[in-house]
Amino acid sequence: MKKIVVAYSGGLDTSVMVKWLKENYEAEIVAVTGDLGQKSEMVGLEEKAIRTGASKAIILDLKKEFIEQYIWKALKAGALYEGVYPLATAIGRPLLAKALVDVALLENADAIAHGCTGKGNDQVRFEVGINTLAPDMKIIAPLRDWEFKNRDEEIDYAIEQNIPISITKEKPYSIDENLWGVAVECGELEDMNNVVPADAYQITVDPKISPDQSVKIKLEFEKGIPVCLNDEIEDPVEIIEYLNRHAGLHGIGRIDMIENRVVGIKSREIYEAPAATILHQAHNELEKLVLDKDTFRFKQDVNNKVANLIYDGLWFSPFFNSLMSFVDATQEKVTGEIELELYKGNINILSRKSDYSLYQKELATYSAEIEDFFDHKAAEGFVKLYGLPYKTISQIHHLQKEEEAA
Amino acid sequence: MKKIVVAYSGGLDTSVMVKWLKENYEAEIVAVTGDLGQKSEMVGLEEKAIRTGASKAIILDLKKEFIEQYIWKALKAGALYEGVYPLATAIGRPLLAKALVDVALLENADAIAHGCTGKGNDQVRFEVGINTLAPDMKIIAPLRDWEFKNRDEEIDYAIEQNIPISITKEKPYSIDENLWGVAVECGELEDMNNVVPADAYQITVDPKISPDQSVKIKLEFEKGIPVCLNDEIEDPVEIIEYLNRHAGLHGIGRIDMIENRVVGIKSREIYEAPAATILHQAHNELEKLVLDKDTFRFKQDVNNKVANLIYDGLWFSPFFNSLMSFVDATQEKVTGEIELELYKGNINILSRKSDYSLYQKELATYSAEIEDFFDHKAAEGFVKLYGLPYKTISQIHHLQKEEEAA
Amino acid sequence: MKKIVVAYSGGLDTSVMVKWLKENYEAEIVAVTGDLGQKSEMVGLEEKAIRTGASKAIILDLKKEFIEQYIWKALKAGALYEGVYPLATAIGRPLLAKALVDVALLENADAIAHGCTGKGNDQVRFEVGINTLAPDMKIIAPLRDWEFKNRDEEIDYAIEQNIPISITKEKPYSIDENLWGVAVECGELEDMNNVVPADAYQITVDPKISPDQSVKIKLEFEKGIPVCLNDEIEDPVEIIEYLNRHAGLHGIGRIDMIENRVVGIKSREIYEAPAATILHQAHNELEKLVLDKDTFRFKQDVNNKVANLIYDGLWFSPFFNSLMSFVDATQEKVTGEIELELYKGNINILSRKSDYSLYQKELATYSAEIEDFFDHKAAEGFVKLYGLPYKTISQIHHLQKEEEAA
Amino acid sequence: MKKIVVAYSGGLDTSVMVKWLKENYEAEIVAVTGDLGQKSEMVGLEEKAIRTGASKAIILDLKKEFIEQYIWKALKAGALYEGVYPLATAIGRPLLAKALVDVALLENADAIAHGCTGKGNDQVRFEVGINTLAPDMKIIAPLRDWEFKNRDEEIDYAIEQNIPISITKEKPYSIDENLWGVAVECGELEDMNNVVPADAYQITVDPKISPDQSVKIKLEFEKGIPVCLNDEIEDPVEIIEYLNRHAGLHGIGRIDMIENRVVGIKSREIYEAPAATILHQAHNELEKLVLDKDTFRFKQDVNNKVANLIYDGLWFSPFFNSLMSFVDATQEKVTGEIELELYKGNINILSRKSDYSLYQKELATYSAEIEDFFDHKAAEGFVKLYGLPYKTISQIHHLQKEEEAA
Repeated sequence: MKKIVVAYSGGLDTSVMVKWLKENYEAEIVAVTGDLGQKSEMVGLEEKAIRTGASKAIILDLKKEFIEQYIWKALKAGALYEGVYPLATAIGRPLLAKALVDVALLENADAIAHGCTGKGNDQVRFEVGINTLAPDMKIIAPLRDWEFKNRDEEIDYAIEQNIPISITKEKPYSIDENLWGVAVECGELEDMNNVVPADAYQITVDPKISPDQSVKIKLEFEKGIPVCLNDEIEDPVEIIEYLNRHAGLHGIGRIDMIENRVVGIKSREIYEAPAATILHQAHNELEKLVLDKDTFRFKQDVNNKVANLIYDGLWFSPFFNSLMSFVDATQEKVTGEIELELYKGNINILSRKSDYSLYQKELATYSAEIEDFFDHKAAEGFVKLYGLPYKTISQIHHLQKEEEAA
Repeated sequence: MKKIVVAYSGGLDTSVMVKWLKENYEAEIVAVTGDLGQKSEMVGLEEKAIRTGASKAIILDLKKEFIEQYIWKALKAGALYEGVYPLATAIGRPLLAKALVDVALLENADAIAHGCTGKGNDQVRFEVGINTLAPDMKIIAPLRDWEFKNRDEEIDYAIEQNIPISITKEKPYSIDENLWGVAVECGELEDMNNVVPADAYQITVDPKISPDQSVKIKLEFEKGIPVCLNDEIEDPVEIIEYLNRHAGLHGIGRIDMIENRVVGIKSREIYEAPAATILHQAHNELEKLVLDKDTFRFKQDVNNKVANLIYDGLWFSPFFNSLMSFVDATQEKVTGEIELELYKGNINILSRKSDYSLYQKELATYSAEIEDFFDHKAAEGFVKLYGLPYKTISQIHHLQKEEEAA
Repeated sequence: MKKIVVAYSGGLDTSVMVKWLKENYEAEIVAVTGDLGQKSEMVGLEEKAIRTGASKAIILDLKKEFIEQYIWKALKAGALYEGVYPLATAIGRPLLAKALVDVALLENADAIAHGCTGKGNDQVRFEVGINTLAPDMKIIAPLRDWEFKNRDEEIDYAIEQNIPISITKEKPYSIDENLWGVAVECGELEDMNNVVPADAYQITVDPKISPDQSVKIKLEFEKGIPVCLNDEIEDPVEIIEYLNRHAGLHGIGRIDMIENRVVGIKSREIYEAPAATILHQAHNELEKLVLDKDTFRFKQDVNNKVANLIYDGLWFSPFFNSLMSFVDATQEKVTGEIELELYKGNINILSRKSDYSLYQKELATYSAEIEDFFDHKAAEGFVKLYGLPYKTISQIHHLQKEEEAA
Repeated sequence: MKKIVVAYSGGLDTSVMVKWLKENYEAEIVAVTGDLGQKSEMVGLEEKAIRTGASKAIILDLKKEFIEQYIWKALKAGALYEGVYPLATAIGRPLLAKALVDVALLENADAIAHGCTGKGNDQVRFEVGINTLAPDMKIIAPLRDWEFKNRDEEIDYAIEQNIPISITKEKPYSIDENLWGVAVECGELEDMNNVVPADAYQITVDPKISPDQSVKIKLEFEKGIPVCLNDEIEDPVEIIEYLNRHAGLHGIGRIDMIENRVVGIKSREIYEAPAATILHQAHNELEKLVLDKDTFRFKQDVNNKVANLIYDGLWFSPFFNSLMSFVDATQEKVTGEIELELYKGNINILSRKSDYSLYQKELATYSAEIEDFFDHKAAEGFVKLYGLPYKTISQIHHLQKEEEAA
């Protein structure tokens, strides 16, 4: 083993990992950090990695690629795991896997190392992703089998090895953040009967103390993708950052859930996803306007399937691609405008507009003043044949019951 | 035609219908009204029906049957049409159809008449219901083919025929109400770009003016069914009425949606469903705790199917029954307690408890202080085989690409 | 009504229709016949139409378009209605609808007339097709509402009106044929307890009298589509005609089924589809070789959905298009070769080859002589985590049972 | 480890296992053999086990339980893996797991050992089964990690340890058999391009040399379960044995397939399942007669789901139980009679009868002689509303296209 590419964040685990891998594999270490919009400090990260023992440190700005190639796909697919979680971490992992593979191939590295544990979903997402993109690449997961039993032992090792870490009071939570949302685990949250402590939330305000004034949001979509916010913001990174800021301030996007992990256990997770929540709802409203009933109904199931695939780490699978072909085809006419009002955790719809709207006032109206295009007489024949099989079933089963009774 | 059973509400349409049917068919009229918990006046209704021309008027208290045989089933099936609408009217119709059939058979009537129009869903629900329960019963739908072109012509006829109607200023909305929710249509709502006017809402308070004090709710479920509220209320009618009142006061359960009707058109509907919203969310939280992943995922699709069947008027179909057998089997362990907090349109989870909870802190924990039961070493083998097919695909497709390039 | 385009076959119904429409609507009649590979006489058809009263008669050779735009799609989607029927008539109808619309628009016609009855599927397929392609085109369905009560009355009218018909002994069956198969209805077949009479079959030989010598077939596919037969035939029309001839001779492709019609009734149908049967099986074999498990499993459901949509007349719907996008994406690697042997109704697989085959002898082998690439140790970890949720469920439910017992 | 229950067949692997476990764990061995109708020698098996080192040998006749609690469920669910394989081995494993657990609990054993390899499905089926039925039971899988690298090394050990084995010429195939079918693997079959050698088939005759006389079969079902064969055989074991014998003689039930294993690889399998093939087809014919369209269509997907669950070793999972509740509900009216003719690999339907048949000649007929109950006029209204959404979509999209062009 000559060279190892390491997924590096600058935190305790990946810092110790850089050193540990260097020592144990006698390998050159290339530290790679992907910027997906997380708030954590990027300044000084390269220097820190070098001081920890890496021979090279690379920071990649992946925000735009993240939105265009990952977030928008999840949005078009209405991908909400178990009905609620917008999958922020889950769609970030495959992009990081891809970035790690790209660097590893460029650097002629022998292996990629990640800092995921054995009971989480992320090991699966990283490894299946890397396996698919570079099937012959070796993968190392030190946290699954190194000698340190807990955080304290890691800290001892770090001090002993002169690894630059900021030994602050242990934060009670494990946090993962990117543009599409924040995931919070651990600590008190592991007890289901504990209400989420106020300090667990990172980017959203409690509706109880959010502003009394509501705020209006106008979103324009083209083929299922947001292209303009409030008639002025067009840059996708800015759209999402704006929504995270404003919707977060208005208490939108808090999720407290029990979920089913890939590795066969249930866990409790807190998520914050202000932008994702707004965008999913607006997108869904638009779909309700322009999709026909059959497509809408089946897409509900496909959406769940896509969400499961993403969660389960199968972003790069052929099945995911084929499902996305279905999804993309359904988005052809998902073009239009949705206006929303945000108020203390609530999202109200102010208006919906689309040139492809299938809502026809002239068909739906009960008003005497609008000319009614609907053929009321046709309804009789329709209901008759629509109900015929049920009537037939009933007749036959009734008849049979009578015969049995006789 | 000697005797006709009429679905009677005391409003303009069904009042005119009673008279019109009596005249046109020279038949005896039996007026039947089902009480599903709607707020509209029942007092004096019998007398009014008689004065309108009915020879008999029957009011049936169906509230308990409605909850136990209809609402609880929809709840267990998580039945939310197009992801949001709890189907209040849609589950009320089959029960009314059943009540009408029961009376018609008892009274030896020749036909059942209902007051639904040709473009709505309810004609389908009534007629398919009646067809199934009494396949040889004749059905009359005067609104689909009588001579009156609009409300004014009906009023003229009513006056001419001495039908007792309360000619008030025409209400701008058409409203249907029962314990499971209120549906509001017509008027300004037909224009999608109109924000819902404040007076459209019947039983919920705008979150903006709802109380500043949150309220707590504790719900106990047994096999998917609510059995106790706040440790004291056990009567199902009282549970739902309490929730409608309190959750309504806190701005819970307003829905503004574009939906796909059975008859092939889209319509815009406003719904209010405070109790249904609370109960569905609490039930879902409990399911997340006790259902295994495979069941949970597939039940998402079944829930959608059940919601569609109910909406589409197929409550009494064999398919509905078979799907409910699946649903019932999944509810075996959906027993436990959920505490919620209601605040200005928000529902927060305070606690979840179940003896059948599959959440195992000892498996999920990242804490150093709890003994960890999870086998971290197994994860490596798991991820390896889990990812094997994707690695294989990748190897073969890569190889093939190279050969093609060569 | 000045000009009517009529779907014309030269048989009794459509001949009478040409005259009847001309008389009743005082319109000019354009007779259109589509050649989808049916065996029925095309020679003299134009003249016959003119003599019957049409002012113009058009015969369109649609065979190539039928295969490339219709049959291949159904094949890629594995579209077999209720598991067996390859949908020959059902995929022919939308193409005919399209041809009729093309002519009607070109001819500036006011309406299109078809000869389908009120209880069949084809009225739905024609009308929904025409509605979609030319939403404002008027449609006439004389057989649904003209005055003739039966065949004899039509014959009387034909004689009276000098319509050239060949009054032969009434054939006991109603037959529809095209390249993808033959459908046989009516007569004795309407009694479920009747064995299919030998004369009902049009293009297949009874396996009992088919040749004793088996025949071999070699099929090459590219992206799910047959491109070469027996290393020499590449023309799609010839491929299908060859297969119909040879597989028919060997007793392949007879189907006797009870099916669910669109209009809510069950019917009994006899189909013959030698080429379709062979091609579906070969295509399916190839898919089993190159598709991954997840895709294969989900595609089973999508295949059923597509078959239902085609049967239900929704070929031109957006939902069909979106599902076909999924299907097309899955066919990317469905390239390879299948060899089959046909023998008295049996199809045996002789060999399967594909550059994209995911079958890896080195992974699957139990032989001591081949190097085994499979990691047996990984299996232990895999099975452990794979089974973890079921073990957990069991532990918790057991525990609970014990507590209840105590 | 004091006592180990071993799944014992008397073959090389499990014989060596008995000895090896006794030596390596210094444990008492209880050998358990389940009789599921396999043809292999049971006589002398107990004695052989004792001579091999077991302290106790138990042979259990599980045939009746196998049929009633396992085979009939798979039949009702139409469970055919990847559309064809009736899952004989896959449904046998959970029953064996249950039998092993029963013995282990009775004997107070510390562990259960099975002879499955690391790349097969059966390890998963055994272990998940045992985990579910006895979550705390230890499981040993010697073949996954013992020292023997191949068959020859096992034989050497057997000779050295005086294990009674019949050293015949190594059979080229690995065979698993029970009442529901035979599975054949290994040898030449591992090469996909090899035609199945004649000696691979164990219980079916090549259609080419099967009798020239066809044979008739009459099957009576009650609620989806076969209750009588040819008006005389009612014992389920006899029904299946009769069908295996006669249908096997007529070349029915040979399957040559590439399938997706649980552990992420594809394998090639040869199956023989004469009785299963006949019974599935007859059952399916009856379902086509008595199930309504909606149920039939959805059950197709559920059938696939059930087949996947069984194959994947999840027989005892709550999800399987819930799906079977659906299946059982659909079987309520699957009562009736099917007559079939078997001829050289072909199955022809001779007649179908059921008191619950939904086929109504009076609705389906095109004959002039039978009174037609179908309302042809209703069809017009039906088709109109059925097609309305597609017409609307088309109008709006056309309109929009024109506007864009303008």
